[in-house]
Amino acid sequence: MKGLMMDYALTVPSILRRAAQVYPEKEIVSRMSDGSKVRITYREMYERVIRLMNALREMGVKPGDRVATCAWNSYRHTELYFAVPSIGAILHTVNFRLFSEQVEYIVNHAEDKVMFLDSSLAPMIATLQPALPCIQHYVVMDDKSEPPTVTPTPFSDYEALLAGASSIESFPDIDENLACGLCYTSGTTGQPKGVLYSHRSNYLHAMGECMTDSFGISERDTVLPVVPMFHANAWGLPYSCAMVGAKQVLPGSHLLGSPIANLMESERVTFSAGVPTVWRVLYQHLKQHKHDLSSLRLIVSGGSAAPLSLIEAYKNDFGITLTSVWGMTETSPVGTLCRPRAWMDAWTEEQRSVVLPKQGIPVPGIEVDIRGENNEVLAWDGQQAGEVVVRGPWVVSDYFKNERTEATLTPDGWFRTGDIARMDEYGYMEITDRTKDIIKSRGEWISSVDMENLIVQIPKLQEACVVGRTDVTRGEAPVVFAVLKEEEAEEGVKEEILALLATKFAGWQIPKRADIHFIDAIPKTSVGKLNKKALRATLEEGS
Amino acid sequence: MKGLMMDYALTVPSILRRAAQVYPEKEIVSRMSDGSKVRITYREMYERVIRLMNALREMGVKPGDRVATCAWNSYRHTELYFAVPSIGAILHTVNFRLFSEQVEYIVNHAEDKVMFLDSSLAPMIATLQPALPCIQHYVVMDDKSEPPTVTPTPFSDYEALLAGASSIESFPDIDENLACGLCYTSGTTGQPKGVLYSHRSNYLHAMGECMTDSFGISERDTVLPVVPMFHANAWGLPYSCAMVGAKQVLPGSHLLGSPIANLMESERVTFSAGVPTVWRVLYQHLKQHKHDLSSLRLIVSGGSAAPLSLIEAYKNDFGITLTSVWGMTETSPVGTLCRPRAWMDAWTEEQRSVVLPKQGIPVPGIEVDIRGENNEVLAWDGQQAGEVVVRGPWVVSDYFKNERTEATLTPDGWFRTGDIARMDEYGYMEITDRTKDIIKSRGEWISSVDMENLIVQIPKLQEACVVGRTDVTRGEAPVVFAVLKEEEAEEGVKEEILALLATKFAGWQIPKRADIHFIDAIPKTSVGKLNKKALRATLEEGS
Repeated sequence: MKGLMMDYALTVPSILRRAAQVYPEKEIVSRMSDGSKVRITYREMYERVIRLMNALREMGVKPGDRVATCAWNSYRHTELYFAVPSIGAILHTVNFRLFSEQVEYIVNHAEDKVMFLDSSLAPMIATLQPALPCIQHYVVMDDKSEPPTVTPTPFSDYEALLAGASSIESFPDIDENLACGLCYTSGTTGQPKGVLYSHRSNYLHAMGECMTDSFGISERDTVLPVVPMFHANAWGLPYSCAMVGAKQVLPGSHLLGSPIANLMESERVTFSAGVPTVWRVLYQHLKQHKHDLSSLRLIVSGGSAAPLSLIEAYKNDFGITLTSVWGMTETSPVGTLCRPRAWMDAWTEEQRSVVLPKQGIPVPGIEVDIRGENNEVLAWDGQQAGEVVVRGPWVVSDYFKNERTEATLTPDGWFRTGDIARMDEYGYMEITDRTKDIIKSRGEWISSVDMENLIVQIPKLQEACVVGRTDVTRGEAPVVFAVLKEEEAEEGVKEEILALLATKFAGWQIPKRADIHFIDAIPKTSVGKLNKKALRATLEEGS
Repeated sequence: MKGLMMDYALTVPSILRRAAQVYPEKEIVSRMSDGSKVRITYREMYERVIRLMNALREMGVKPGDRVATCAWNSYRHTELYFAVPSIGAILHTVNFRLFSEQVEYIVNHAEDKVMFLDSSLAPMIATLQPALPCIQHYVVMDDKSEPPTVTPTPFSDYEALLAGASSIESFPDIDENLACGLCYTSGTTGQPKGVLYSHRSNYLHAMGECMTDSFGISERDTVLPVVPMFHANAWGLPYSCAMVGAKQVLPGSHLLGSPIANLMESERVTFSAGVPTVWRVLYQHLKQHKHDLSSLRLIVSGGSAAPLSLIEAYKNDFGITLTSVWGMTETSPVGTLCRPRAWMDAWTEEQRSVVLPKQGIPVPGIEVDIRGENNEVLAWDGQQAGEVVVRGPWVVSDYFKNERTEATLTPDGWFRTGDIARMDEYGYMEITDRTKDIIKSRGEWISSVDMENLIVQIPKLQEACVVGRTDVTRGEAPVVFAVLKEEEAEEGVKEEILALLATKFAGWQIPKRADIHFIDAIPKTSVGKLNKKALRATLEEGS
């Protein structure tokens, strides 16, 4: 028997209307390239979105069409996050930091019809323009950078477009299962794949982020997303902030150190989100410059694991809580979040140090399982490691144009993340590796992440990365790439690494002395992760 | 174009499985009638629910069947909240405090197949049994009250039933739009009507309650629902608590004063929910007895408006935040909640006193409009009053057996609440009356609630109620029923009422001296609201 509740669609335009009606006075603050700030209220944003919706229709954008953005975090990007889905079209946030061949690939693969771009990115896009025949209109957003030397031609100016557009409100009926946004994975293996979010998935993900045990975004928050709006759905923050009327502070293209600290201080930021690199650089800045960041209640760090040392340094030196979040483009992205249980407050610092660096428990809405090599369900005992599989209303089931492979889902329909983890008895997940990065030695697994986490505890080291190389007798053997801190010397460090590893790893797991290399920097992917593929490639070249 | 996210159903059994898997150690504590406490963990609850699901199947309960409960707040009632929907059947929580004819009506109207009842309610149900031919099985739950003198015959014992049931887990696939729960309205006009919740509506409502700006229920909370589990879906708390692993404290049948204060203190309760009467009685108790309630972070008060004096008394005398929530059985029930905006912190106490007694802003998911007599949308200007209409994923569209009338929904599909309210420019709703209670005098409206709120500020008065009587010249005229506090005398009080009303109401709105009556108590409905229908009836008898 059916329930008799309203058939109410969970859609992005309903979030937009709520923001304008219930929180008309709350602000979105944008830092422009020249350091100036632009402030608009949710009510003003709404009126501009109405014009933008009409401008898109004027340009011939139809429901289901893809509209590309190449832009940093700004109020205009937020407007696009709302306007494009509100006419039933699909917002494709292009990660322009990928290789230009990949940008070319994804714009053509998405068949984007219109592209909105920051003026600072105009030269880059102008170069690509001949390879992007699908784009019928370019719209340039003046981000107050130096005037671009070249631009795609012809192009419209964003503000002129809005000024000329109708202000008549017209919202089409939208089914909650319709596509709303499109993000491509960073494609460390093969071509990037498109993840097609629905209105429903974005709405539910936003509700999830406002739950107290997740990000807990509320009207009282001032949120600074350092995570770029062109990556992984901006972690859903444009939608969750608008849903509860949180003030937003958008940093433009200045994402490291001083500009972030200044914005946090001047706008009294309470919540921020970004990758560990951002927090490492900010920490170094804060050690050297005085800032009042007492307004901050929570920083969430995701994309890769935040080391315990960084979590503790923020807490001990600045009283700031930094928490790990785990997810991926395919999970909208929030999947798990690490908050100690209430009863863990009574624990010693040592006991808590076991939990804090974990990726945390599944957020409500997300179910997590760990599976063995034959898809068997493994116990949550803190011991067994298996592949993390997830399901939930904001998890992908298929890639754009149905590019699913057999490896995308388990036979029982869970998404295979490619991460290896243990789950403890209280549901805290600890990622130990990527399936493709794990080192298989003598038929056993060596976790490259466990090894890295141990090695970076050596004070002289800045970073470390462990990958496997082919080994005749063992199958694979671990290789360490280490980056020394400025002004530190190599002397004795190899011995220190080997001695430290011997405290936690079995003899056969420990790398040979010759397999420890010092390099100037670990190569990173376009989204700031350790690029193990590139490091493995250097080993193959050398062999 | 459809989004490519998982088709993941939002269901009650997924909340149950989450509670057992992620929060196995968290507790549900029940106070029994003899004052003892029973503690079970979510893991134990899960195992008992599995047995209960199998026992229900053994009794022949099929998907879509209705299963009645007549029970106070206890862990067994929580088990029923999960087990019945998890086999696809419908949990019908019977409000046994209605008149017995109404209980008889709703059980037969619902065609309940099985009834679970507390042993303390057995005599009452035994009397009704001949009139309830649809019930095929009675199951008695021993709540440690005096052994019942009579019981329905035959009956099973709840614990014996569980002990004899299979422990094999078997969850059917459930569509999120399937019916999950059934609650009847209290039926102040006409027969009670059934509201049929779906799995989706209960799931989304639970997510909503865990949002920081709503109830903000989290793992760190210990929640004491004073609101009965047989009324208005228990305000959704059994589901929201389980979703985030909050500890639950269930008070059984002892809902006033000392037992509540003792439970709050001994279990370190952080959050509680109930009607204003509960909080008024608890306040009186706390004034006379010392309790450490420092663990409480929030009390929400709904069902009728909490007066500012009570909100301020809790804050000033005990440092406890008491907040108004508005909703009804038809809205699952949470619709609006009053939290001052961050920037209102800078306000004076006087300014805040304007906002605090309001019903607050719509919670995310709920849209509110106020409409004029011809369904026209009225502005949110704090001035215009109109009927509150709502829509959202946990709002009713139809009553059970499709007993919708033309007045249920507006022509554009919003639910008509029957409440009259103003909305201010920041979205704060202030209920001024019920459509059926408003007094229409000389073609204008007089708000009975505004008048009551003013009158109860007189220190000698305990309560007041204002209704309309037919008046030859004015159409309707207001009549005041006032209840003096113990040991206070009538002398001079009528004059005080008239003088006070003259400060805020026009001369033609003010009642005649002869229309002010002192009575011993205001009659209440089964859920504790002022029974204006009964008072109007006494006027008609007298005329």
